[in-house]
Amino acid sequence: MSVSVESFLMDPHHDGTLQSRIRQMVAQGILSGRMRRGERMPSSRKLAAHLGVSRITVTLAYADLVADDYLRAEGRSGYFVSEGAPEPGDHPPARASGGDAVDWGRMLGHRPESVPMSLGKPRNWRDFRYPFVYGQADPTLFDHANWRGCMLQALGQKDFALMTDDNFDHDDPALVEYIARHTLPRRGILAAPDEILVTLGAQNALWLTAQLLLNQRRTAAIEDPGYPGLREILRQTRCRVVPVPVGAQGLEPARVPAGTDILFCTPSHHCPTGATLPLEARHALLHEAAARNTLIVEDDYEFEITHGRAPLPALKSLDREGRVIHVGSFSKSLFPGLRLGFLVGPAPFIREARALRATVLRHPPGLLQRAASHFLSLGYYDAMLRRLTRSFSQRRAVLLEAAQAEGLTIGGAVDVGGSSLWMRTPQGVSAETLARDLHEDSVLIEPGARFFDRPEEGDRYYRIAYSSITEERIPEGIARIARRLRSGNWT
Amino acid sequence: MSVSVESFLMDPHHDGTLQSRIRQMVAQGILSGRMRRGERMPSSRKLAAHLGVSRITVTLAYADLVADDYLRAEGRSGYFVSEGAPEPGDHPPARASGGDAVDWGRMLGHRPESVPMSLGKPRNWRDFRYPFVYGQADPTLFDHANWRGCMLQALGQKDFALMTDDNFDHDDPALVEYIARHTLPRRGILAAPDEILVTLGAQNALWLTAQLLLNQRRTAAIEDPGYPGLREILRQTRCRVVPVPVGAQGLEPARVPAGTDILFCTPSHHCPTGATLPLEARHALLHEAAARNTLIVEDDYEFEITHGRAPLPALKSLDREGRVIHVGSFSKSLFPGLRLGFLVGPAPFIREARALRATVLRHPPGLLQRAASHFLSLGYYDAMLRRLTRSFSQRRAVLLEAAQAEGLTIGGAVDVGGSSLWMRTPQGVSAETLARDLHEDSVLIEPGARFFDRPEEGDRYYRIAYSSITEERIPEGIARIARRLRSGNWT
Repeated sequence: MSVSVESFLMDPHHDGTLQSRIRQMVAQGILSGRMRRGERMPSSRKLAAHLGVSRITVTLAYADLVADDYLRAEGRSGYFVSEGAPEPGDHPPARASGGDAVDWGRMLGHRPESVPMSLGKPRNWRDFRYPFVYGQADPTLFDHANWRGCMLQALGQKDFALMTDDNFDHDDPALVEYIARHTLPRRGILAAPDEILVTLGAQNALWLTAQLLLNQRRTAAIEDPGYPGLREILRQTRCRVVPVPVGAQGLEPARVPAGTDILFCTPSHHCPTGATLPLEARHALLHEAAARNTLIVEDDYEFEITHGRAPLPALKSLDREGRVIHVGSFSKSLFPGLRLGFLVGPAPFIREARALRATVLRHPPGLLQRAASHFLSLGYYDAMLRRLTRSFSQRRAVLLEAAQAEGLTIGGAVDVGGSSLWMRTPQGVSAETLARDLHEDSVLIEPGARFFDRPEEGDRYYRIAYSSITEERIPEGIARIARRLRSGNWT
Repeated sequence: MSVSVESFLMDPHHDGTLQSRIRQMVAQGILSGRMRRGERMPSSRKLAAHLGVSRITVTLAYADLVADDYLRAEGRSGYFVSEGAPEPGDHPPARASGGDAVDWGRMLGHRPESVPMSLGKPRNWRDFRYPFVYGQADPTLFDHANWRGCMLQALGQKDFALMTDDNFDHDDPALVEYIARHTLPRRGILAAPDEILVTLGAQNALWLTAQLLLNQRRTAAIEDPGYPGLREILRQTRCRVVPVPVGAQGLEPARVPAGTDILFCTPSHHCPTGATLPLEARHALLHEAAARNTLIVEDDYEFEITHGRAPLPALKSLDREGRVIHVGSFSKSLFPGLRLGFLVGPAPFIREARALRATVLRHPPGLLQRAASHFLSLGYYDAMLRRLTRSFSQRRAVLLEAAQAEGLTIGGAVDVGGSSLWMRTPQGVSAETLARDLHEDSVLIEPGARFFDRPEEGDRYYRIAYSSITEERIPEGIARIARRLRSGNWT
């Protein structure tokens, strides 16, 4: 038997060099059982002609496959599937989910309905011409070349142990040191390595904290509106959740109810309104917390993207009693897919968080910790942040101007820049409907209802982010929003 | 003011090129506030002489820093800290854990004592000459070059969205497809993409499963001895845990007690004895499970490292009722630091697992999913697996021969190879003591007590793995264990 040249189809959408694509076709043919041991491969000349590539490309791919014992060479141009090639599965596959013998509804218990997870962030956001989408990386601002360089360095022999080991009891020391010596001092925070835990993004840091500190007998206070991912986390702990209304200057310390065990807040840039908690309010908050023995979780998720005015010291830096747990993230500044964040708190708390993390997921991948630590310590991160904030600040100015020119209403803070603006629709206009209608105009905005404890209260709010839209497109995007608002039938 | 050349100290232990180390020293000097805006840098000639490097190296590093606006060049050879350089932290750092105002013992509640996490796997295992350590990658067998190549490909522009996006509602389609089309069929399993979830390693897959299916009213049965990480996971769910004794052929189906809601097992290679569950027992287990309405979680953690005889079909492949949840991992075959595993089960279960994963950690990093999917689909993975199993099989033969020659007693299975052997000490000899004493001989073995429900029952067992020790060193390592056993004072 010989393998027919027709079984080779070059997938035009596939990545990689021609040579690696040929290699892949052969390897997959063997692994799936389509090409069997001892079968003769098409000659390099024939295959090259069939695929429309040069003969040397095929020869090189074949040589590579011979080296890995997928193929063996015989004589001058004969290639055969090697006797040592891997066997395809021996057992005829059975469908995984056979039968309905199991009542999954019962087995999964009374779990809360899983939230519609794609809300506000459709997968195909890149297809929109005016994507005011929040929290995705902008390829035009990202420092590809140096990130690749740092990854390559982390992939080197020197870092092999850090990449491969099962290091569940400690994090990359270089990354922890960088966070302790550079990231935190800029927030006014001094922390020892045993007061820092690297987490799988800020979400994971918040989750670990909530798991450790809350249960059905405890009460958590959260900002309203606030980060929807947090509400989901708290639901899992079954604690009592009290929403605290947020004003133009963020959380009002006096409104945090007595009996609150843990307060979750975003003082740097309130999520989603962008309000910055004034210094006096920070002191007042700490004072109240001390009086009532409340712990505070400070989610500093977007601190590094500050422009417009100098950042205020973190709550944690003002805390003299060790009652603030600080959550940081590299997701907004590097990219969310990296999944690296950190938790800063007293050593006994961090110790328990580390043990819980080990049970749930062991540790954040060593390779990414090391690559990030190279990127940070070589100063590329700071250089990129400066480019990022410079660009965001320009985009914000354009956005504010366009919004004013078009008569849009801003519903949140305007003084300190993050990566988004919080907006309000005119009376009677549902932001949900607006967002849906705008899809037709290739405009993506995020309806605000999901940020509210009672979604109906948020029906007139929406978020427009400028982290993934170029400056030039902002005016037209805003104009389209305004046009919809003027033309719509909103009853 | 100018920056003194003495403030530059080349750290001999630091990674990277000379140029990048100079860059790093300057960037960190600026970020930490030691070098201030407007200060003059040492001339390239002076700094080069001080550091003992060539002048061009310093010039290139400076040019790089100028490009990123850390420095500015003036005239022909003057460099100054740029006025646009980042500011160091504005606020004097305060110690993170000030005061003891918070009673952390009370706040953390009655959490179980965190287990001593480094047990059996000391961080410095590389310092041992005879490291019979389990579950770490062997740099001599790992395919560095192609892994780097696949990482580079994943870092390319084409994969930017996959690397950076916040893709919490779906996994890398190419990785899922590979698992569905190649990995699972070899286990006899056919699964659709919505029946597969990529997890942060097998540990995370087990954790998600336990969280979804167990609570304080349910009963889990586990193997005894068994995987210690699982016991920790179950403790968190507060379910009832019933240990099921394991014999020479693994779990005995008849011994799974009535009333078991979920049975966790390792049929391919029982952890830690290495026993393989015979085909008849697999059928019997499924039969019992159906009769008692028990769900089975099959942890197939080491399947791909099978040598010695052909693997048996996975339990999941024999399951006609959809009551088996299958856990797989690339940790043992690629490396544990990668943290990639997967969960296979009925779609409604996978849907809930995905929602829970999103709350806890969002998703496994996209970059690693993509790099792994390149490595798998190009066939490098299979080629590496073959090298790995060939080498492990040789090491195992050497190990068995040495153990026999030295009169050591094997306490587990010998017929199917994984990456370790389960051993037993002579009467009266504590494996814990043996392991401790062997440190002096530069030999690392893993005491078995922690695998047992009642640790005292395991005091005579230990595990010796051959995944991180070279073939040549095995005989001497074994000889040293035997010498200790002969010479010891064990009362």
